Amino acid sequence: MDSKFREGSISESTRVDAFSDATFAVIITILVLELRLARFEPGHLLESLLHEWPIFVAVLVSFLYIGIVWMNHHALFMRVRYVDRGLLWINLAILLTSALLPFPTHVLAEAFKNGNQFDQSVAVAFYAGMAGLMSAAWVPLFPYLRDRRHLVDPEVPAAYFHEQRARPWTGVALYSVAALLGFVHPMLGLLLFVAMVVYHALTSEGTKPKVGPAKPAKPA
Amino acid sequence: MDSKFREGSISESTRVDAFSDATFAVIITILVLELRLARFEPGHLLESLLHEWPIFVAVLVSFLYIGIVWMNHHALFMRVRYVDRGLLWINLAILLTSALLPFPTHVLAEAFKNGNQFDQSVAVAFYAGMAGLMSAAWVPLFPYLRDRRHLVDPEVPAAYFHEQRARPWTGVALYSVAALLGFVHPMLGLLLFVAMVVYHALTSEGTKPKVGPAKPAKPA
Amino acid sequence: MDSKFREGSISESTRVDAFSDATFAVIITILVLELRLARFEPGHLLESLLHEWPIFVAVLVSFLYIGIVWMNHHALFMRVRYVDRGLLWINLAILLTSALLPFPTHVLAEAFKNGNQFDQSVAVAFYAGMAGLMSAAWVPLFPYLRDRRHLVDPEVPAAYFHEQRARPWTGVALYSVAALLGFVHPMLGLLLFVAMVVYHALTSEGTKPKVGPAKPAKPA
Amino acid sequence: MDSKFREGSISESTRVDAFSDATFAVIITILVLELRLARFEPGHLLESLLHEWPIFVAVLVSFLYIGIVWMNHHALFMRVRYVDRGLLWINLAILLTSALLPFPTHVLAEAFKNGNQFDQSVAVAFYAGMAGLMSAAWVPLFPYLRDRRHLVDPEVPAAYFHEQRARPWTGVALYSVAALLGFVHPMLGLLLFVAMVVYHALTSEGTKPKVGPAKPAKPA
Repeated sequence: MDSKFREGSISESTRVDAFSDATFAVIITILVLELRLARFEPGHLLESLLHEWPIFVAVLVSFLYIGIVWMNHHALFMRVRYVDRGLLWINLAILLTSALLPFPTHVLAEAFKNGNQFDQSVAVAFYAGMAGLMSAAWVPLFPYLRDRRHLVDPEVPAAYFHEQRARPWTGVALYSVAALLGFVHPMLGLLLFVAMVVYHALTSEGTKPKVGPAKPAKPA
Repeated sequence: MDSKFREGSISESTRVDAFSDATFAVIITILVLELRLARFEPGHLLESLLHEWPIFVAVLVSFLYIGIVWMNHHALFMRVRYVDRGLLWINLAILLTSALLPFPTHVLAEAFKNGNQFDQSVAVAFYAGMAGLMSAAWVPLFPYLRDRRHLVDPEVPAAYFHEQRARPWTGVALYSVAALLGFVHPMLGLLLFVAMVVYHALTSEGTKPKVGPAKPAKPA
Repeated sequence: MDSKFREGSISESTRVDAFSDATFAVIITILVLELRLARFEPGHLLESLLHEWPIFVAVLVSFLYIGIVWMNHHALFMRVRYVDRGLLWINLAILLTSALLPFPTHVLAEAFKNGNQFDQSVAVAFYAGMAGLMSAAWVPLFPYLRDRRHLVDPEVPAAYFHEQRARPWTGVALYSVAALLGFVHPMLGLLLFVAMVVYHALTSEGTKPKVGPAKPAKPA
Repeated sequence: MDSKFREGSISESTRVDAFSDATFAVIITILVLELRLARFEPGHLLESLLHEWPIFVAVLVSFLYIGIVWMNHHALFMRVRYVDRGLLWINLAILLTSALLPFPTHVLAEAFKNGNQFDQSVAVAFYAGMAGLMSAAWVPLFPYLRDRRHLVDPEVPAAYFHEQRARPWTGVALYSVAALLGFVHPMLGLLLFVAMVVYHALTSEGTKPKVGPAKPAKPA
């Protein structure tokens, strides 16, 4: 058994992976608790279910967003070997902002079920603000790791974290636009949320083919 | 310590196991939150509890179904060494459809407690639809792994994933029948759900004895 | 990296440990969701909190019971190296019965807050029944492992599982007595629940010093 | 594969890490379930959201507190190799007191939304009491490990646990002061809670640079 103990203020990243995995797993499952069946008169269950469509859409979009964030986290921490105090705090900020997402998801669905157009604009802006915070939490991560090579797997190319540093800013910018668009018309904001999920899915780091050919891993 | 980092777009499957395990663990526990005691007049707790029988049955059936899905997941990923982008997305679809199950479970129980026969048929069809989606999420998995041998443990026989590919289709077909039967009579649909769980338990892959004799693992 | 794959129908127990750990962790945390503050008039928060004492006691007892079950699970699976189909099903039964405990905990607290003595007797019997099922789920475990030495760590003495096989029966018997006592007077049942937790804590297997002297593990 | 089995009553600490990680992950996510949107009249979603500010603050403070406790747990168990019965019970007390925090968080927010100043003082004292219990659960940990060197990584300096033993007492003392201050004015108590989080963050053990220079870990 290897020692878990490292002198100084750093430690191996495996327990951070486990903690983050468990947190994302709970978030993704708790989102589904937002699906609530309203009271129904006998014979009217079907209408009651159909009336719930906004929350189905909202839960689906949020689930995919959290799934993508987990993938990015997975791809990034695959390259991280040790964690120090600063990295733990950045990771905690990523988890906190992610854990908050079920609440704006709920607000969004309520606004589309029970609110008027102004409520829907507010809800779109609120969701965009929280999703933007989730992107913002990733901003300090790439420069931090670029400047601390001793935390990173030595096989990771030096340019990697430098190249990635613009990606979270794109998220922040696009969610800001979605918030503004939501005041033009709530549906425009919603459409941009869906587009964001597609954008994140397509650019999801670590799953995008790298410059060189993707070599099949040698059977270890 | 082995490097967690792999060049190209693949990575080891251990963190996917951990994330999936945690997600299934939360789903299985959250199902039980559907058990709610209705308000009762002093002296009438017993009636109130007995009135809850449909949700007890629904939770039990769903618990067993998720348990079986976890077993199948466990048996399959035991054979998977590396994950790539496509496999992560398929796995996410499996987790999403599984995480949704508490909601149709709740709808089913509500329909049998408060609804008329039409509501019960709708609820059976809704449950069948969601459970069928859970089966459908497994459809792309077997061909995907059959065609990507570099992700799979080299000791797994080449024919394995090809042979397994029909199993999810059976689930989809049987849940479609259950949905239709539910409109003949809701109880017929329910009975098929119970039969499905038994079916899945008996065919649960990786726990079924293989063609050759099950060799005791060599004490490593 | 060792291969995760084993021919035949068995696999290593590490993923079962992870799944069970996550399930127990969720159960233990979800218990606390039973603590709900009733609506209060301004100036009456304190009375409202004090009125909640039965649920505090019930949550504490259930938390300790789940904690003890986790400890026993930990101690047992420390001795298990491989799992097969039967063992997975027994483990699933242990997890299911444990996951149900928040519900009788809630029923118990409601009966002591809002019910009459008959309700309290019913709630005590219901809790005893569910806790007894939790014990019963362990009954098949010890004979199963005793008869399948290839699943067990070779260093575990052959007599171990044989000696342990009576312990779950003690739980079943004592919880049956608690259910009956609850109809004499609910408080007698409650007192036995507290005594059970103490009993389980004191006999908690794997933490009890073994026959030989407890050797400090060699620094590996 | 190393044997998981150790003779005597001790075992490796990895499964305790996993169980604790999962528990903290669930607590941190469940805190966010306290964010509930009150019913709103069409056009008044914004006011309804703004009215929720106390729960936002309370959830943020509690999230950070749990995050810090996890960091301390991580830093401490990095130095622990084996667990015995006493250590498992101390760890369970740490998890129980942590799992309770969502409830006083909820009480605090309710008091600031719906209560008068006396309710707010009660809620501050209740929160302080529970947070103080969380600190108290750490009190026995440091002497316990100081006196049981065979559980600890041999590279950890002998003086380490002795030096750390005063830290939980500081938490207990400061939360007692916060409870008293809360009866002078609730806001004073709240301010001390925020200061506590900052205090814990700054002194968070294992992330604080040690006496010697923090050596980059040798690439293993």
